[in-house]
Amino acid sequence: MTSRMREETFQAAAAVAAQLAQDADRYAAFGQCLRAAPPRALLTLARGSSDHAAHYAAYLVMARLGRLVTSLPMSLVTLYGARLDTEGLVSLAFSQSGQSPDLVEPTRAFAARGALTAAFVNEPGSPLAGAARWVFPLHAGPERSVAATKSFIAQLVAGARLVSAWQQDASLAASIARLPRALDAALQHERAWCDAALPVLQDAERLYVISRGTGLAIALEAALKLKEVCGIQAEAISGAELHHGPLALVEPGFAVLVLAPRGPAHDGLVALAADLRARGARVLLAAPVDVASSQLPLVTTDEPDLDPVAVIAPFYAMAEALARARGRDPDAPPHLSKVTRTH
Amino acid sequence: MTSRMREETFQAAAAVAAQLAQDADRYAAFGQCLRAAPPRALLTLARGSSDHAAHYAAYLVMARLGRLVTSLPMSLVTLYGARLDTEGLVSLAFSQSGQSPDLVEPTRAFAARGALTAAFVNEPGSPLAGAARWVFPLHAGPERSVAATKSFIAQLVAGARLVSAWQQDASLAASIARLPRALDAALQHERAWCDAALPVLQDAERLYVISRGTGLAIALEAALKLKEVCGIQAEAISGAELHHGPLALVEPGFAVLVLAPRGPAHDGLVALAADLRARGARVLLAAPVDVASSQLPLVTTDEPDLDPVAVIAPFYAMAEALARARGRDPDAPPHLSKVTRTH
Repeated sequence: MTSRMREETFQAAAAVAAQLAQDADRYAAFGQCLRAAPPRALLTLARGSSDHAAHYAAYLVMARLGRLVTSLPMSLVTLYGARLDTEGLVSLAFSQSGQSPDLVEPTRAFAARGALTAAFVNEPGSPLAGAARWVFPLHAGPERSVAATKSFIAQLVAGARLVSAWQQDASLAASIARLPRALDAALQHERAWCDAALPVLQDAERLYVISRGTGLAIALEAALKLKEVCGIQAEAISGAELHHGPLALVEPGFAVLVLAPRGPAHDGLVALAADLRARGARVLLAAPVDVASSQLPLVTTDEPDLDPVAVIAPFYAMAEALARARGRDPDAPPHLSKVTRTH
Repeated sequence: MTSRMREETFQAAAAVAAQLAQDADRYAAFGQCLRAAPPRALLTLARGSSDHAAHYAAYLVMARLGRLVTSLPMSLVTLYGARLDTEGLVSLAFSQSGQSPDLVEPTRAFAARGALTAAFVNEPGSPLAGAARWVFPLHAGPERSVAATKSFIAQLVAGARLVSAWQQDASLAASIARLPRALDAALQHERAWCDAALPVLQDAERLYVISRGTGLAIALEAALKLKEVCGIQAEAISGAELHHGPLALVEPGFAVLVLAPRGPAHDGLVALAADLRARGARVLLAAPVDVASSQLPLVTTDEPDLDPVAVIAPFYAMAEALARARGRDPDAPPHLSKVTRTH
């Protein structure tokens, strides 16, 4: 038995390879443009899964280039009519379909007032692509499952390419080029993920997905997918925020998924998983295979900042199986449609 | 029967009055400073409830002054060692205790590199206050309940004062001055809130708290309190984000709290509440008394942008009663302490 969601998850490596084979000159030119006229301000425009990819790109920009990025509440433009300062602004929109008016309208408004606008979008003929000055197609191919999978992974890669082009970091670029292999290797762990996670999550109604740093974007995406396809109220929580309130829910038996790829946040997350386990929580720790307490094996890429890209692939495969185990059709989440238009 | 949480909630109007009686010159001087040298970039530093107050302040700054604000993931500084561009940077930290190293360390680092740093803090003798160039005491008085109430409301007011001073908006300033009366009026609705909400939430394990625009900060705070003192996994969701995935959970019987104060997002939220009710969700709509479908009455202040400040007061009173109805001690949420230090 299979589903579109599973098929498309397993197309991720090919989708990324297809993207990497194209548009190198465009990324380089955009990077050149950003170096020549460093932005005074940067913002992202996105919703749903695409917003999680935007978070990942923003974190990389802040960590590696030292430039602040604002995740724009689009209501400022579409409802409040705010006149944002667009001098030296770079606006980065992320979308699968490129249809939602709350992405298109701000992109048009910012472009009209002199901002440098870019769109990372799977549909290059979409209104969003038409509105942006720079268009970076995701090249993920048609995605028919309501739940985004390969297009999300392609967005993460596009964000990393943007950063690599801006930084002119040859080592990062070489590591990005080897991501398709890492994605295939990550998906080899599907069985281990399902064997460990399904018994814990089969009957769960509530869950925290905890990570931090570059991994938090993946936790946000994982939590949304667990809501969307599995019907679990999963919420992404930063490992640091947990102690500022959310920990109160973690009673014995409470399920927690901890995503601990390599990087500066890794050690704290592994320690947190141990602490939560000692409190009696049902903890699932996703960490590289050489971490003794890891239950959900993660592959490492050539660069810790890219490891999150490989975390989400086996997660998607597990979530698809979990949906079926819970009696749900992963391709038909209740009440949702593939193209969502919000204002 | 009473609790510290309830006592402190009912001290909110007095706390705000005490704050408003002080530091007017300091806010005016800071506003003058921001007009004289407009910031190139702004960021907020905060965790937990304080972060929700920071969101409110940031939204007002973006809506009214057109300046982008970044909610900084502190891990960038404390774990990733990012060297953020601090030229023309204004850093705004929000905290009750002013103790957490992940606020103090970035504030020190930014100040050392020329940024203009400010702290909105209830403990003016705290390390955070010591690290910041501008200190705005909340003047909320001692807060002994683990769950912040009056200090959060005082933070919202401090954020509004910052915006008013920066904008030199006399009408906003006059409206802020009348907030204590609005808070007292809002708390008069305690009984109506409890009568409507307790039957729905008494046995709930999961919940969405939905709002948008300036109200989203309040939804974030309400969701955290429901986790912390009531043991409900409540998650704040933007009314626009709901359709990008989270709606999948809203089956008949699912509980939803919609916060719809006045303002540009109001109509959409009231319509959304009706739509969710038609899907069979157990919807609690908080809206001004003149909205026919309102179950949780909201008072209006003299300025729609300030209405969210009055939304949270009766919510706190209700959450405290709900905690007791669920057999929990509102003053002793599991695993948490009043002063939280994270890195």
